[in-house]
This record gives sequence, structure tokens and C-alpha cells, in this order.
Amino acid sequence: MLKVVVIGSGNVAQHLIKAIGSCKGVQLVQAVARHPEKLYHLLPQDKITGNFNQILEADVYIISVTDDAIAQVASQLHFTGRLVTHTSGSVGMGQLDTRNRRGVFYPLQTFSKSKDVDFSTVPLCLESEHASDYTILQNLAELLSENVYAINSTQRQSLHVAAVFASNFTNHMYALSNNICKQNNIPFSILEPLIQETAHKATQMPPLQAQTGPAVRNDTTTLQKHMDFLQDDAIKNIYKLLTQSIQHLANEQKL
Amino acid sequence: MLKVVVIGSGNVAQHLIKAIGSCKGVQLVQAVARHPEKLYHLLPQDKITGNFNQILEADVYIISVTDDAIAQVASQLHFTGRLVTHTSGSVGMGQLDTRNRRGVFYPLQTFSKSKDVDFSTVPLCLESEHASDYTILQNLAELLSENVYAINSTQRQSLHVAAVFASNFTNHMYALSNNICKQNNIPFSILEPLIQETAHKATQMPPLQAQTGPAVRNDTTTLQKHMDFLQDDAIKNIYKLLTQSIQHLANEQKL
Repeated sequence: MLKVVVIGSGNVAQHLIKAIGSCKGVQLVQAVARHPEKLYHLLPQDKITGNFNQILEADVYIISVTDDAIAQVASQLHFTGRLVTHTSGSVGMGQLDTRNRRGVFYPLQTFSKSKDVDFSTVPLCLESEHASDYTILQNLAELLSENVYAINSTQRQSLHVAAVFASNFTNHMYALSNNICKQNNIPFSILEPLIQETAHKATQMPPLQAQTGPAVRNDTTTLQKHMDFLQDDAIKNIYKLLTQSIQHLANEQKL
Repeated sequence: MLKVVVIGSGNVAQHLIKAIGSCKGVQLVQAVARHPEKLYHLLPQDKITGNFNQILEADVYIISVTDDAIAQVASQLHFTGRLVTHTSGSVGMGQLDTRNRRGVFYPLQTFSKSKDVDFSTVPLCLESEHASDYTILQNLAELLSENVYAINSTQRQSLHVAAVFASNFTNHMYALSNNICKQNNIPFSILEPLIQETAHKATQMPPLQAQTGPAVRNDTTTLQKHMDFLQDDAIKNIYKLLTQSIQHLANEQKL
């Protein structure tokens, strides 16, 4: 049975603790958090420590803290020669302390505290300093998820930028759309089937081919109507820039 | 049995023809298209005409052509006093010729020719000049879909802008994300669970609350890394603008 210690108490850490805690074949030995009380709703108190000197032995340590804190946390571990990973999309494996065997265990998903995630579908992106450690991480990952990928630090950096566009910016488009609905007394729920279908299409055809709307049709009458409708300069600017970008991509494809 | 004539042969027209053609309780009397051959794969040839003088009698006429052509098509109809609608999100009902009873039958969905859509989930946004005609449109819409809304021309205009953000711009975010993946030899499919979860979250909580990522965390180290990573000035500009916009909305909420 694989023994795992999770270090951290944020969004990702909590989802990991839940997933590992309910997974057969993996033992969540301990969770480590500066503020142990943040995890009381997830684990018995004797399984949580705030004291770095009391961290127990495990096969894999997963540091799931803010990017800026990863190096510091890794350097404070009292042991050497063990497999220590972090969960960040944008921090290189090299930021981890060299006294331990290093790896990355990056779950590529958007986690909110108030919403459960089916962890079996979460892509887990793995990297390790030593080939033999990759097998350990792979064993762990495959117990937790059906989507396991080998992704090195360079690839992970570009993947993280791609994820910002595919998820964070996309969600912001929903937020702007929601604001327009609110300001005009339209229930945002009317857009739900459209949002779902747009996301579903992305799995069925290349997004460039799936593009619809006034920008890609170069429907200048509608584009002008929309620009006239939008009052806020910042939002107008986003509308203009994204319209140009849609047309640019479409023209590039034709060339 | 409600008798319907569809005028047009584009994306939306074809999806409507399929939906109406397979719907019990509605009879698709005829389709009208300047290039009838575009519809040969959907209907027997004797059900299609390219001649406006041969348009048959029906309870509802649905003009589904490009926005710019709606007024002209409506004015060419050889009859008067019948219920004539269009399917556009951005054209007012007033653009239809006054010789007929006017209405709007706007399906709020992204339609691609190569992908089937479950029409029963498509929101149908209805408007009519005469109250009694609303009942006819509602009867038709409820036979086709579970999501039927009364939306007037002013509301529809804002709804259309909201839909551009929620769907067209969102799809463009997927396209930009796909390009980053391609340029770095990462399969875009790795992002699918993230895309689906982001869309799913939008149905479960307000998008503002669902926002994750470096912008809303104000994680300046990661934001700078991403800016350094992006080479194309236009894409860099989009990254910067959307990051600012995410932070602006988040700050507004805190106030």
C-alpha cells in the first residue's frame, strides 16, 4: 500500500486529501498544515500536524501550497532521500530542495472549495528526477485517475498558459456575459445550453472549425451594433480585441 | 397539426428543418431556398422550392437567412396577413415587412453543420407583434424544445451580446489554447476535463465565484512568467487585458 503525506491546506490540497483518503490502495498517512484546523472537516485531528518535525514516513510527499512557498516548504523538511513532489503548473521541479528525490504531481483542473470534482477524470501530469520514481508516481496517479500524463517542466509551463486560456479566461467570459444579463434583466440560465454545447464542441472538432458568430462571419452590421450596445470602455476594448483575434485566426487558416 | 415553412438553407435553417421534420405535431410543409440543392440531403426535392411565387400556405413562416437579407426576403413574400418570423439574435422584429403578422423565433445555440444538436435543449426565444400569435409560436416552440422564453427585441439584443461572450469568445479562448498546445507538442485533449468542468461550474455557481487562476489570486510571479512565455504581441495583449479585467471584477465585488 502506497503511503502518502499531503502538505498544505488550500483548494488543491483539500481536493487531493479527499481523493487520496477515499482511494483503495493508497494510505493517506498524514496531512501537514500551518493551520491544522482548516482540515478538521476532512480528517481526524491526530492525522494532521502543524509541526514540521513530526512529519511521518511515507513513499510520496505532495507539497500543495502557493507557488511562492514551495521552495521554502521543501527546504524545511527534516528528512533526506525521500520522494518529494509539488502540485504547481508553473513552478519547475528544480525549485524543490536537492536533499530529497524530486518530482511533480500536477492535477490539471479548476478546483473550488465549494464544489466536488470527480477526481477519476482529472488529468494528472507527472515528472520525476529519477526514472524509478516515475513508476511510483504513476502507480499512485493511476489509482486516483484515468488520465495520467508524463509532462516535463518545460511542457508544463506551456500547458499552464494554455489552461489559463481554456479555463480562467473562459470563465471570465462567462462572468462578463453574466453581467450583461444582470444589467438587462435576463436570467443567465438561458445561456447554459449554449455554454455546455460550446464546451462539448471543443471535444468533437478543432475549436477553429467550431467558431461561429458575427466576428468569424465578418458580419460588420452586427459587430457595430454590439460595439454601440456596450457602454463600458474596458468591455468594448475586449470585444474589439477578441473580434480582431478571431478574424486573424480565421484568415491565417485560409492562407 | 401546425404547418411550418422554413425559408433559408444555412446552418440554423438546416438544424431547424431537421428538428421540425422529425417532430410529431408539426408538419414541415416546405423549405424555400435560392439554391434548393443545398437541402437535397435533408428533404425530398418536391418539398423544396427556389421560387418565391410557389410558397405554400402555412401557420408559421420562419425566415432563417443572414441578418442583412431578412428585410428583403420578408418583403418578397407574395402573401399578406400571415405569421412571418425570423431567427436572428440581433435583428429587431420591426425589420419584417408590415404586410404580414410579425414575430421572432430565435434559437439561442451555436450551430455547426457537421455536428448534430439535441434541439429539445435549445432555448427558443419568442416575440410576436400580436398576443394571439405568441400562443401559436409558443405551441410550436414547446413541441420542439423544453426551454421556451418570451424575449422582446431589446432584451434579445443584449442577450445576443451576452451569447457572443459566453460562446464565440469562449470558443476563441479554446482556439488560442489549442494553438499554444500545438506549438509545444501537447495534445489538446489533455485540457478537455478542465474545459468541461469550467463549463459545468458555470451552471452551479456564479462565474465570479468560480474564478480561479493566477489573475484572481494576483499571483504576480506566475503572471509575469506567462507574459514572458507568450511571444506573439496580439496574444500577449489579450492575456494582459483579460488579466486586468478579471482583477477589476474581483475588486469590484470586494467593494
